[in-house]
Order: sequence, then C-alpha cells, then structure tokens
Amino acid sequence: MEYACRMKFLKSSSIRQMLKMAVDRELISFAGGLPDASLFPIQILAELAGKVIEEHGRVALQYAPTEGLLALREKVASLLKAKGIEVEAEEILITQGSQQGIDLLCKLLLNSGTALLTENPSYLGALQSFRFFEADLFSVAVDGNGMIVEDLLDVLDKRPALAYLMPNFQNPTGIQYSLDRRRATAEALATRGVLMIEDDPYGELIYEGSPLPSIWSLYPGECKVHLGTFSKTIVPGLRIAYLASDAEVIHRLALIKQATDLHTNNLGQWIVNSFIEEGLLGDHIEKIRRTYKGKRDAMAEAIRRHFPPIARYEVPKGGMFFWVRIPASLDVVRLLEACLGRGVAFVLGSDFFIQQPLEDSYIRLNFTSMNEEKIVQGISVIGEEMARLIQRREEVPVIR
Amino acid sequence: MEYACRMKFLKSSSIRQMLKMAVDRELISFAGGLPDASLFPIQILAELAGKVIEEHGRVALQYAPTEGLLALREKVASLLKAKGIEVEAEEILITQGSQQGIDLLCKLLLNSGTALLTENPSYLGALQSFRFFEADLFSVAVDGNGMIVEDLLDVLDKRPALAYLMPNFQNPTGIQYSLDRRRATAEALATRGVLMIEDDPYGELIYEGSPLPSIWSLYPGECKVHLGTFSKTIVPGLRIAYLASDAEVIHRLALIKQATDLHTNNLGQWIVNSFIEEGLLGDHIEKIRRTYKGKRDAMAEAIRRHFPPIARYEVPKGGMFFWVRIPASLDVVRLLEACLGRGVAFVLGSDFFIQQPLEDSYIRLNFTSMNEEKIVQGISVIGEEMARLIQRREEVPVIR
Repeated sequence: MEYACRMKFLKSSSIRQMLKMAVDRELISFAGGLPDASLFPIQILAELAGKVIEEHGRVALQYAPTEGLLALREKVASLLKAKGIEVEAEEILITQGSQQGIDLLCKLLLNSGTALLTENPSYLGALQSFRFFEADLFSVAVDGNGMIVEDLLDVLDKRPALAYLMPNFQNPTGIQYSLDRRRATAEALATRGVLMIEDDPYGELIYEGSPLPSIWSLYPGECKVHLGTFSKTIVPGLRIAYLASDAEVIHRLALIKQATDLHTNNLGQWIVNSFIEEGLLGDHIEKIRRTYKGKRDAMAEAIRRHFPPIARYEVPKGGMFFWVRIPASLDVVRLLEACLGRGVAFVLGSDFFIQQPLEDSYIRLNFTSMNEEKIVQGISVIGEEMARLIQRREEVPVIR
Repeated sequence: MEYACRMKFLKSSSIRQMLKMAVDRELISFAGGLPDASLFPIQILAELAGKVIEEHGRVALQYAPTEGLLALREKVASLLKAKGIEVEAEEILITQGSQQGIDLLCKLLLNSGTALLTENPSYLGALQSFRFFEADLFSVAVDGNGMIVEDLLDVLDKRPALAYLMPNFQNPTGIQYSLDRRRATAEALATRGVLMIEDDPYGELIYEGSPLPSIWSLYPGECKVHLGTFSKTIVPGLRIAYLASDAEVIHRLALIKQATDLHTNNLGQWIVNSFIEEGLLGDHIEKIRRTYKGKRDAMAEAIRRHFPPIARYEVPKGGMFFWVRIPASLDVVRLLEACLGRGVAFVLGSDFFIQQPLEDSYIRLNFTSMNEEKIVQGISVIGEEMARLIQRREEVPVIR
C-alpha cells in the first residue's frame, strides 16, 4: 500500500503513548493534559442528557447543520462578547474539539511550504497538524511575558502567512502574555497582514491576577481567528469546541467541515447548550479554579521541597502545567526512564520545540489530573531521581 | 486572506443547501438522506445516556483513546464477523461518522493527482472529499447489477491507486451489486493491486432478497477497507461509525486522527456500546426495515400512479432512495424549481456524476424521511409538474 507524501511528516507523539499508559490507574501521571475527572458535573450531565434526548430527541439525535446548533452558537457569541471578542452567532463554527478547528484551518490555509509562525515551544497537537499539512514552520522564542518582540520582527521577514499563538497559560510553558506584549504582537502581525490564530483553551483556568484582553480584541485587522473549547470548563469527552472568525471564513470552514465529518456530534452540542442555558457554567468554572489552584499550590510546594536547585521554574498563574528547566548536563531521558520505573510519568519538553534549545532540557508536569496526595508523592520521586542522576554525574568523570 | 489551492475544488452541494431548507417543517422533502426520526429509540437512548454518565462518567466524559472505546471495537468486530468480514478489535477504528473515515483515508492515501476509481454516479460526500484532496477521478458506469466489468477493466488501465465502492443499495442509484459482479469486481481490483474501499451504510436496510457477501470477503488480497456506521441503524446525531482494515493501516489512521480531532466523541461511543450490549440492535433494525419497506412501497405505488411513463426507475431492494431517469428533453432544473414553489424538494442527479450522462437526466428521491401521507402528496406534485413540463414542451416548438 502506498501512502500519501504527507505521511512522512506524521510521528506518534510520546504524549499520546503516555495517555495510553495513563489508563493504568496505578501510574502517577503528570504526562497528559487531562482535567480532573472528579470535578465532572456527572449528576447534572446525566440529567441534562436524559432530558435533552426525551424532549428534543428527534432533532438532537438527527443529522444537523454543519455550522452547529444555532442556540449554542448564540451562547458562544455572548460568552465571547463578555470577554471583549465582538462576534455574532454566524461568526461561530462549532467544532469537534479545538483540534478539529486546527485541522479545518490547515485545510483552508496551508499549501505545502506555506510559512507559518508559532511560539517556540508550542502546543504539540497543533504542530502535528501543521507539519502534516506540510507547513514551513518558523518559531519565535518566548520569555515569561510572551513572544520576544525583536525575534518576532526578525521572523516576520520570512513573510509567514499565519501565526499560531496561545497567549493564556500556554501549553507547554504556562506563560501568560503581558498586556504590552499582547499589543506589540497583535500590531506586528496586523501590520504585516499575517493571519492571527489565537488558541485559548486555558483562559478560564486563571488562579491569580486578572484576565487580560484577548489578542483578537487588540489585533487591528480582519484576518483573525479565535479558538475556544468546553473540554476544560465542562468535559472533554463530548468534544465540543468552537472557532470564531468573520462570517466569510466560517462559511468556507463549514464547507470543509461538510467534507470532513458532516457536523459535530449533535447530542454533545445540545448537552453543552443546556448546561449553559441552566446558568451552570460560571459556578462550575469557579469550582474548577478553586480546585486547580489548590493542586497548583501543592505541586509548587512539593517541587520547592523535593527538586534540587538546578531545576528552575515559575509558578504558573493559570492553566494546567509546570514547565521545569533542567541543565542539559542532566539526562532527562534517563530521568524519565527512572521515574517510569517507579510508576511516575511526565513528558519531555523536546517534543514541543520547533528549534531545540542548546543549553537546557525541559520537562512538563501536569497538575490538574492527580490528587494532592499523589502530586506530592510523584514530585518527591522525580526529585529523588534528579538527585540520584546529579550524584552519579559527579561520581563518574565524563570523557568527551 | 489567501486560501490553500485545494479550496478551488470545494463547492457547496445543493443537497446540503436542501438540508438547511428541510428544517422548514412544512416542506415535503425527498432531498436529504435523513432517517425517519419517529423511529429513533428515544426513551431507551435517554435512559442509556443517563445510566452511562452516572455509572461511567469519569471515563465516558474524559479524553479517550484515539482508536475508540475497546468494548465498542470488539462489538463492531463481532458484528462484522457475523457478516463474513473476519476482523479483530485492533482492526477497527471508531470514526466521527463514515464521512470522517473517508477524510482520514484521503489524508492517508491521496496526493494531488492520485488516480482514484469510483462508480458513476457515486456518493456526493465522498466525491467532495476526493476532489478536495485533489484526486484524479476515474469512473465506471453502473447498471442494475453493479459496475460494468468491461468498463472497469478499461479504467483499470489508468492504474488507479484505489477504488471506492458502495455495493449495497448505492447512493444515489439504490442498486445492489449481484454476487457475480461482486466477485468480478473484487478480483479485477485485487489482480491489479488496487486498494478497495467498500462503503456500506445501507447494507442493513434490506427489504427483499438476502444480503450478499461483502466485496471485502471476496477480495483476494490485503489492501482493503470496509466502512460502516450506526447513523442509519441507531441515530445519526451521535456520529458513531467505524472503519475496518488491517492493524497497520488502523495504526496509521489513528495517528492521523490524533491530529484531526484527538478522538471520536466518547459519550456517543458509550451509548452505542450500551445499546448493542443490551441486545437491542437486532430488533431495532427489524423495526426500521419494516417501516422503510412500507414507505418504499408507498413511494413505488405513488410513482406508478402519478409519474408520466417517460420517468423510468427500478424499485430499490433496500436503502433510502429511488433513482428516476428522465429524458434530457425535460428540463429537470425547471421541474425542481416548480416543485420547490409548491413545497416539495428533491435533488438533481447531476451532482452525483463524475461524467455526466448525455441523453438522460436523473432525480433522487429519498423515501425514509417523510411519512406515507406526505410521500403520496409530494410524489403527486412532482408527477403533475412533470406532466405540465411535457405539455408545455409539446406546445412550444423548440428551435435548435
């Protein structure tokens, strides 16, 4: 069987492999980006699902418009307006998770060799899609405040057609763009006519400080897309997310979606719509925030206690991840192997980089999935194994 | 905004436009391929949805493996084995509707210009995907027994990489391949090493005669794919379908699906899994068959009574559609306009052809969606408008 050329750009990600391992309940996994399943509003969703099917089954279980359930599109538009993203229902496409939003955008925008700008590092799932559609990736380093503007201006000389950004508690680094950096990035992109794609899965998961304006709202032009999802604020298993852009782009994306999967699963849309209609979303997000803040603090404290000082990190103000920098002299692959041997998983930072850093390695630690006891237990194991590797390194003279 | 080159191959289909119109409850629509919503097992699905969420919510609403719910993959493998398709669970991928199966196959197999063989006419949704991925389409005419073998052999000289077939009650023609034609087609494709894709959404909707062996089971080679769905046998709104192939192909398709939408909506998979587990599928399909057979007979009788003799058709032995041939001298576009003006919709055959027939036009009439009263009412309107157009044609001398 002969495969399409694009197949050579597709690799299995170590994270997905980890996700499979995470099914093993005994593993303490900081590897995936799983929400805490104990927070799922199970009783409410069971009732809403039953009610939606009983009352609207003939519509909710039938084929449905590709663009999505109108009532849900209207609610998404209202939620976005409340965040300063001025859109109407016809500027919303309901997607099968944000990953599908990215797939549809790739289909709409990418030829083989289209230049695309991302943060370095960036979200692995997006990078996989971009590479699969044979984009030419250019990346801009980030510091604690977002993309470094001088580097951005340099990369803009490569004339990228689009830019993919995650300004709120970025995956994997956890950084939140500062207001100044949001403005500078939006303006630099708009000035060069670069289509701006803002992916915001974590914006609601904020544990300190105030939410900052979306890059969408600061971008002085029309070529912009905003991606959002209910995977982190309700549940991921329904696969209900959304994409905002101008009505013409939404129309074209809907045509593509027809040929992709006809429409997003309809029952999931109706359930999410009911959940919002019942006024449950705000309080539920508050509950998630409180719980995740506690978990973040537990992990911060555990890292402070158990990691040796060579491991450097910032406590993230939101999102799901700690991003820990480790000197390249400590072999993180061996660290991971040793930890897996003791039932603790995390992911290596290298998968997320377009350009690998030379002097440091990174590991990404999810803090939302495990309970606080397991967080402390797992972090102490990683800390011990770090210490052991450092000691061994000091004992064995390295011949170069 | 600059779009990718493939966008020039994407057109809005008139059927999708019709589907939007069908939301207007007053319209008598024979246009879409909608199942009869009054047959949806609403009470049972409401109970199962509630139960699945209550009992398994932390898993059923969480992120899930890309390949699909293992219990469901096992059940699908059993259902297929009972039909002579020898597969194990690891040879099954759960997809977001069969349309996604097609999208994933396009991603796996198609480069710009890859030669692909289809029936002429063929399923519009598949053609849209194939064109979008820039396949070079070669088509083989069908008669009442399937692809015409001499034509198939001619087209095989073009060295297509893959062939897309719908042997059971094909959309749009309603034909069922004969056993001989299945064998001849399978052998011709296998001999030339052509990857065979068998799409079987309608196999269970059989109203007379016996089911015939799948082309999969007759294909003497490894390069084969079988697509199936629960959209027609349970409900379409959950978007649960499946793709069978060898484990290596499934592995690659799962990698692609990771970058496409991570996984199929998990709640839908759990609901379908419970529905089968409770032993409800067989009886439910029997009920659908009985009802659809009645509707088919009602439409056949109405056509016999109300259509003028120039309209030719076969009564389909299964599926969802009548395919009516009309001499090209009768303007079917004007016919459709006149019927829409009187609140009756159907679709023109021209969308389904890769090579347009010269002497005839076709219309496709869905008989599963409307009740018998509306079927009779709608068919009589179409018959009247046909007669009116014939009369006008005879009155006005045509200058050529």
